[in-house]
Amino acid sequence: MRILIANPNTTQAITDRIAAVAANAASPGTEIVAVTARFGAQYIATRAEAVLGAHAVLELFAEHAEGCDAAIVAAYADPGLGAARELLNIPVVGMAEAAMLTACMLGRRFAVLTFAVALEPWYQECIEYNGLQARSAGVFCLDEPFNDINTVAEEKAAKLAELANRAIGAGADVCILGGAPLSGLAAQLRDKVAIPLVDGVAAAVRQAETLAALNPRKPIAGTFRRPGPKQMTGISSSLKTFFKG
Amino acid sequence: MRILIANPNTTQAITDRIAAVAANAASPGTEIVAVTARFGAQYIATRAEAVLGAHAVLELFAEHAEGCDAAIVAAYADPGLGAARELLNIPVVGMAEAAMLTACMLGRRFAVLTFAVALEPWYQECIEYNGLQARSAGVFCLDEPFNDINTVAEEKAAKLAELANRAIGAGADVCILGGAPLSGLAAQLRDKVAIPLVDGVAAAVRQAETLAALNPRKPIAGTFRRPGPKQMTGISSSLKTFFKG
Amino acid sequence: MRILIANPNTTQAITDRIAAVAANAASPGTEIVAVTARFGAQYIATRAEAVLGAHAVLELFAEHAEGCDAAIVAAYADPGLGAARELLNIPVVGMAEAAMLTACMLGRRFAVLTFAVALEPWYQECIEYNGLQARSAGVFCLDEPFNDINTVAEEKAAKLAELANRAIGAGADVCILGGAPLSGLAAQLRDKVAIPLVDGVAAAVRQAETLAALNPRKPIAGTFRRPGPKQMTGISSSLKTFFKG
Amino acid sequence: MRILIANPNTTQAITDRIAAVAANAASPGTEIVAVTARFGAQYIATRAEAVLGAHAVLELFAEHAEGCDAAIVAAYADPGLGAARELLNIPVVGMAEAAMLTACMLGRRFAVLTFAVALEPWYQECIEYNGLQARSAGVFCLDEPFNDINTVAEEKAAKLAELANRAIGAGADVCILGGAPLSGLAAQLRDKVAIPLVDGVAAAVRQAETLAALNPRKPIAGTFRRPGPKQMTGISSSLKTFFKG
Amino acid sequence: MRILIANPNTTQAITDRIAAVAANAASPGTEIVAVTARFGAQYIATRAEAVLGAHAVLELFAEHAEGCDAAIVAAYADPGLGAARELLNIPVVGMAEAAMLTACMLGRRFAVLTFAVALEPWYQECIEYNGLQARSAGVFCLDEPFNDINTVAEEKAAKLAELANRAIGAGADVCILGGAPLSGLAAQLRDKVAIPLVDGVAAAVRQAETLAALNPRKPIAGTFRRPGPKQMTGISSSLKTFFKG
Amino acid sequence: MRILIANPNTTQAITDRIAAVAANAASPGTEIVAVTARFGAQYIATRAEAVLGAHAVLELFAEHAEGCDAAIVAAYADPGLGAARELLNIPVVGMAEAAMLTACMLGRRFAVLTFAVALEPWYQECIEYNGLQARSAGVFCLDEPFNDINTVAEEKAAKLAELANRAIGAGADVCILGGAPLSGLAAQLRDKVAIPLVDGVAAAVRQAETLAALNPRKPIAGTFRRPGPKQMTGISSSLKTFFKG
Repeated sequence: MRILIANPNTTQAITDRIAAVAANAASPGTEIVAVTARFGAQYIATRAEAVLGAHAVLELFAEHAEGCDAAIVAAYADPGLGAARELLNIPVVGMAEAAMLTACMLGRRFAVLTFAVALEPWYQECIEYNGLQARSAGVFCLDEPFNDINTVAEEKAAKLAELANRAIGAGADVCILGGAPLSGLAAQLRDKVAIPLVDGVAAAVRQAETLAALNPRKPIAGTFRRPGPKQMTGISSSLKTFFKG
Repeated sequence: MRILIANPNTTQAITDRIAAVAANAASPGTEIVAVTARFGAQYIATRAEAVLGAHAVLELFAEHAEGCDAAIVAAYADPGLGAARELLNIPVVGMAEAAMLTACMLGRRFAVLTFAVALEPWYQECIEYNGLQARSAGVFCLDEPFNDINTVAEEKAAKLAELANRAIGAGADVCILGGAPLSGLAAQLRDKVAIPLVDGVAAAVRQAETLAALNPRKPIAGTFRRPGPKQMTGISSSLKTFFKG
Repeated sequence: MRILIANPNTTQAITDRIAAVAANAASPGTEIVAVTARFGAQYIATRAEAVLGAHAVLELFAEHAEGCDAAIVAAYADPGLGAARELLNIPVVGMAEAAMLTACMLGRRFAVLTFAVALEPWYQECIEYNGLQARSAGVFCLDEPFNDINTVAEEKAAKLAELANRAIGAGADVCILGGAPLSGLAAQLRDKVAIPLVDGVAAAVRQAETLAALNPRKPIAGTFRRPGPKQMTGISSSLKTFFKG
Repeated sequence: MRILIANPNTTQAITDRIAAVAANAASPGTEIVAVTARFGAQYIATRAEAVLGAHAVLELFAEHAEGCDAAIVAAYADPGLGAARELLNIPVVGMAEAAMLTACMLGRRFAVLTFAVALEPWYQECIEYNGLQARSAGVFCLDEPFNDINTVAEEKAAKLAELANRAIGAGADVCILGGAPLSGLAAQLRDKVAIPLVDGVAAAVRQAETLAALNPRKPIAGTFRRPGPKQMTGISSSLKTFFKG
Repeated sequence: MRILIANPNTTQAITDRIAAVAANAASPGTEIVAVTARFGAQYIATRAEAVLGAHAVLELFAEHAEGCDAAIVAAYADPGLGAARELLNIPVVGMAEAAMLTACMLGRRFAVLTFAVALEPWYQECIEYNGLQARSAGVFCLDEPFNDINTVAEEKAAKLAELANRAIGAGADVCILGGAPLSGLAAQLRDKVAIPLVDGVAAAVRQAETLAALNPRKPIAGTFRRPGPKQMTGISSSLKTFFKG
Repeated sequence: MRILIANPNTTQAITDRIAAVAANAASPGTEIVAVTARFGAQYIATRAEAVLGAHAVLELFAEHAEGCDAAIVAAYADPGLGAARELLNIPVVGMAEAAMLTACMLGRRFAVLTFAVALEPWYQECIEYNGLQARSAGVFCLDEPFNDINTVAEEKAAKLAELANRAIGAGADVCILGGAPLSGLAAQLRDKVAIPLVDGVAAAVRQAETLAALNPRKPIAGTFRRPGPKQMTGISSSLKTFFKG
């Protein structure tokens, strides 16, 4: 099985981190193809940056989906996910979506922990977009500067474990470590927090495998059928092929 | 007062229709500047096309917002609205948002009427995104082909008046005519439907004027503060200026 | 354009304050007619006082609406608003409704700030009545005595600015200054608070103008059609005319 | 035990019907005192008429509550209920409230059946005001003229039994016969409908007895404490005594 | 009238406490029959223990319901309530359900107070199961050990009165004392807390009497009709009789 | 990996069907252990039968969980799931839960299709219990008799495909085939329905594998920690070991 992971951030080091965690989480025989946004923000934290990331993800999928069995949008609040699900013939999962739905099987309410308050509104909107407010215990953010986006997981590991305790006090049964830069941290903190932790990349890889294995058909009805043919302007020719109906 | 209207569709004729309705709806002394997306779909109907439209809107605002007092996203489900609200120093309203909030002052439940079933999911998600499900009587769509997107309003006027009656039966107090191609139709059908009709473009222009007149400050806190400075790649230089903090 | 403002409180000084802020907020050419409840409470703060205010508002509208283009219920939680909307042939807006819907175009979550804890339940029920819980960051009240209802705005200006900061911490993108006695304060505090402030009276005047300009028809179907003819007892003859069908 | 029933409609014949059903439903030893609104509508069906009914109910309670153990607002959507609950020292229940909460113990979803479509919006708002949407299967109305409000129950008995079947199809486990003119009908139709029926007056009387027997204290905190002392104008002297703190 | 109370806990002393409070709360002429679970937990506090309690309650009802007019599930979060409502021909109420619905007539938001944090998730799920989140101000728990489940009410009376004050600060209009071991405490604390208190057992007994008096029919449609005949294995013969259709 | 599947129905033939579909859906190397309830209903369809099934599931898990890596509750509305999640040290998933969460990654709204109207209320409560109403397009049931519960899938295959079309019309993006007797049908109907189909057993097996692979810790805080030690009566000795803390 071959899973395509599109990193909507333009930072290659984040892609590398994602790819390593993904390879580790994948079943034997699963191949990971990880690609990086060619335009947009170094690291997406706001709605504006997510708009660019959503477009960049579609371009990546247009170029690389051929021959893959499932695809992943690998920034926490899933820019472009619904759009990609319309366009691709293979299952697509978002990192936040996969983490939240997986967390729902581990507890009644999940908390999302992350390393910067700037991410809170986007993560919160993602919970609401998924209709999961009744399952959320809140988004909990560290409110302090960090040195380097590429090593923020290691830098803030202890602080995030403390933050998990605050989430437990607020009713969380399970914590999601949100944000691609925190990929891999859940495993390291597993025994330092009193409730289960969910890693977004690992959850997304397993859920992508699950969907691919279940082999659902591409819808030709409902709201995720392919858009009808339409004249498109100013986009790459590979992306244009998705809009030929 | 000067109001910038960005049409996320790439069709100039739609922009022309919007501009005419807007000029008619505006207060004396308001100048309308209407611009057209330079890339994306002729006419946006799906999540995938909206992703491109959102990006295109940001580019249009980056280029044209200077010297304007308020801005409008002029495709019904408001692609890029939240992002634009973060980036611009002037108020931004969406056509769907303005229509729905205006409708809330005319009745308890509003219906959205439109000319194609392909639009339903996107419009429905927009209601949910705005948290207005409790005020919605549903999205009602004609389910039949049309000849020309630029004259669909005139072609389907009688059918849309009938559809309004179905919405009344489903509990609507007020109907929104959704979709830029229907701009101007509300005035024509005013006396043919038993409940008030709201025109998206007219509502958006009046709401943009209202916000500009109320002169709220640009937030420097909350979730619509400007994103912090960040290195951006592969976007226009005018759009880049928004991301300098 | 002529806008009728009915103050459901019996205090003329509050009407004077409202009228002054309204005149300032109105477009050129808009005439403000402000009238005061002839029975009920000096200043409405509870459900019981609001019941009287609602009746008083209907009496005021019955007497003064003739010749006006739109009407405003000018106590924050909008006593009698739905009733007035059934009865009048012109658009009617509530001060709270207008403030909240306007705030929805300036941010994702609004807070309502006010000067007395007694007002909290009524304001909270108003949010719920409008179905806007998902857009609310809460009602925030000063919890300390004030000297004079007619000058409480000036007396508590600094404290309310502090309270706004607490609202920001609770997730507010925008603050409404709730309660007719605070009219005009938003403009004064504009640069002292990090997020936009909304003045109830100013928002209501602009929204009333907007509705009047959009010129929606009086519904003859839906839940805001005029009640059918019915024998009414013990009310003023002007109010009776509304119930002749 | 003595229970005060205030009929917010001005029609004495409706009060008589309510009183008869109430006397029949009451426990041995319970005395029913039924009084009729002195101003307002013959039979309340709209928000506007309910505003007048709410005021009329407060006047009735001010005059007659002395010496009673509990009080009932006896028009289906409970005009003035919250206000009365603030003012009175004894428990107050609404006919709709009592019927709906009682129905919640007989099934998962209740339907409200009534004899005129004009009542639907008011009844629906009452469900929403009580936060019981998740327990509602809808409001079902006969849509045909009736001869006499005082005998509509007998006239439409068979049609309402048929309507109950439609409600069952829509997921109702229990049906409320809404509207004071239908009082007493539930008992007559008991064996003609396949699910339990709830009579608003009977439920209200039993719930009023329940609250009186449980003997809860009058709150001096929370949102139903008595309003603080306030200068009131233009209301009866008996009603004024409620506002002396 | 004869009311059957099934205690899903296996502790006879809790049954005795319930029976005493029930007898005190009942109308003259009501006979209380109180029975104790024959298997399961001493005192139910978790979902797992509630599963056993639900089964035990059905067995108790199967054995003892004959000749009774109404039945009560007497553990706070109502294990087996929906199931019993399907099976029995007489009305069934839950202690939590009865307390919450009664509280809704005494205020807008109720708080549930209890003596151990272990009970919080189960009580919270019960609020959600009943669709009453909009009426809840939260579940408030003492977080400290207690000496004896049979005297925890007396031991913690003062602490629970303090806890009620915290609930008032969080918006409660009324407090429920949750958990069978706290039965009877509400009356003792009546004048020590500023808002009304609701006793679960007393509320349940009065509501059971109310339902019996209203005499609703056993549904033969809707979701609480008796299950069709089905072959059952490994349950008592008395319980089997419920499944003969 | 070894996955324990507990069938809460007492019918061995259903267990055999589940086991066959599970083996087919599982990854290479996964061993399926399928066990059958020793008491309760042949085939659970009501709340009452589910109470027995929940108890039976706990007994099965107590006896068979040792040495397994994850466990599945294999009746569609997941009797005993929350309880099992408290008690077991390994991840537990429900068939309905797994199907619904998987469906959320394939579309915005899912429909549940099943073969008997008796199942509707229980399935609907399961959607509500999971907080997924906003993602549900409804439960759709065949309303006609069937010959044999063990072959109902084959008997009704064509009718269920038609039913799926009705669900599409109601807004479904994806359909779940609900109920253990329909296991395996999704694959057969894959190309006969225009949207993706989800098989409950296949989804549950893959999700159980996913959770086991992610290796979350057993919580020692939050609402799914093991219940504290408690004296238990009248249950099997293997089930008692779960309650030793």
